[in-house]
Amino acid sequence: MVGSRARTARDFPLDDLAGGAGRWDLLARCVQSALFVSHDLRRDTELVLVLLGPPSPPKSVRVSGALVQRLNPDERSTVALLSRALELPLPPGGSEVESSPGVFVSRRDLSATLDAAGASDPGAHGDGRMVLLDESGRHGGPDRLPEAAGPDPTFVIGDDRGLGEGQMDALRARGAVELSLGPVSLHADHCIVVVHNLLDRAGAAPPGAVGGR
Amino acid sequence: MVGSRARTARDFPLDDLAGGAGRWDLLARCVQSALFVSHDLRRDTELVLVLLGPPSPPKSVRVSGALVQRLNPDERSTVALLSRALELPLPPGGSEVESSPGVFVSRRDLSATLDAAGASDPGAHGDGRMVLLDESGRHGGPDRLPEAAGPDPTFVIGDDRGLGEGQMDALRARGAVELSLGPVSLHADHCIVVVHNLLDRAGAAPPGAVGGR
Repeated sequence: MVGSRARTARDFPLDDLAGGAGRWDLLARCVQSALFVSHDLRRDTELVLVLLGPPSPPKSVRVSGALVQRLNPDERSTVALLSRALELPLPPGGSEVESSPGVFVSRRDLSATLDAAGASDPGAHGDGRMVLLDESGRHGGPDRLPEAAGPDPTFVIGDDRGLGEGQMDALRARGAVELSLGPVSLHADHCIVVVHNLLDRAGAAPPGAVGGR
Repeated sequence: MVGSRARTARDFPLDDLAGGAGRWDLLARCVQSALFVSHDLRRDTELVLVLLGPPSPPKSVRVSGALVQRLNPDERSTVALLSRALELPLPPGGSEVESSPGVFVSRRDLSATLDAAGASDPGAHGDGRMVLLDESGRHGGPDRLPEAAGPDPTFVIGDDRGLGEGQMDALRARGAVELSLGPVSLHADHCIVVVHNLLDRAGAAPPGAVGGR
C-alpha cells in the first residue's frame, strides 16, 4: 500500500489522522482490512505501508500478521502502535528495524519493497506473482484474480491519488498483472477486503485463518 | 447494523471509541464501508445503526447516502458527526428527528427498524427482501447473494457479539434469507464491503455511483 503523502515522522496529533498526518487514517484501515478477521488475525498475511510524505521519505512499515502484537481494530490505536516506527533511527541500505513485535521499518521505497517481496524469504515475504489493483483492469477483473494471483501473491495498491508513472513502470518491469475488482472504484482499504474475500472463496485461506463456521 | 453495546448518549471521549464508546469505532467503519466509494458516496445506499448500549437504548441512527453532508472517511470525524444525534430529545413512537443533513435518529429497536425498512417509503427505505448476513449461511453463500437479495434489499448484520435469539426471530418472522459471504468469518464493516462488491459486479449499481473507469 503506497501512502503518497503519509507523514514519515511521528509529529502529527492522533486527532488529525486524515489531515495533518497525510491520510494515516486510510493506512490504519488498510492494516485492519489486511489483517483482521472475526476474533482473529490473518496469520498468513502481511502488509507493507510505503510512506512517501514529508519530512523524511521514503520509509516502509511492514506489519506481519503472524508476529504482530497489541494490534487493535480502531484507527487511533493502530496508528499509535505503527507510528512508533517513525521515531527510530534507520540504517542505510534498506535493512529493517523492529519497532514493536511484528512491526518492521526501513528506508525502502516502492521498488525496494517490491524487490524484498520478490526475494526468496518465505518466512517474511511472498515470492509469487505481483498484482496491481487498478481500476483500468488491463489484464482482467475479479473473476480472474485467484488464478492470476497464484500462490503467495503480492498485491500493490495506491491511495486516493493513485500510483505515479515511475511506480507503474517499476511494477510493469517486474511483470505485474493489472486487475480490477469490479465496475466501481473503491477506497484502498475496501479493495483489500474484496481481494481477501475472493481468495478465501477460492480456497486460498489456510485453516488457521478461518473463523466462525 | 446492530451495535449490541454501542453507547446511546454522547458522553464518551472520541479518543476511546473502541472502549468506553461501546465499539463506536466499528459503527464508524460500517458507515464508511456502506457509503464511501472512491471520490464519491453511494447515493443509493443508506445505513441504519441500531444502538442497544447504555444509558438509553434503543436508539436508531439512519444515514442517507443521498442526503448526508460533511461526512469524512475517518472514524473520529464520523463519530463526531453521527453522535450529535445522541444529544437530541426523541419523540415516543419511533418518529425520526434529523440531527444533521441526512442523519436521522429515533427510538426504534431492530424490529421497528425492520418495519420501517419494509414500509413503502422508497425515498428513504428499501421495500425489498431482507437478508441476514450470517456465517451459518443457511440459505446459501455469496454466489447466491445478488439473486437472493433482489432489487432494493435490506441487509442485516450484527457486531462482534452477533444477534440475539429475539433478534433472529424478528428477522425470520419477516422472511429474511440467511446468507454467508464465504468460508472466513469477517468483521461487520468488511462484510458490507463484500456485499457492495457482489452487487456492483452483478450490475446493481446505478451509474451515479460509479467511480473511476
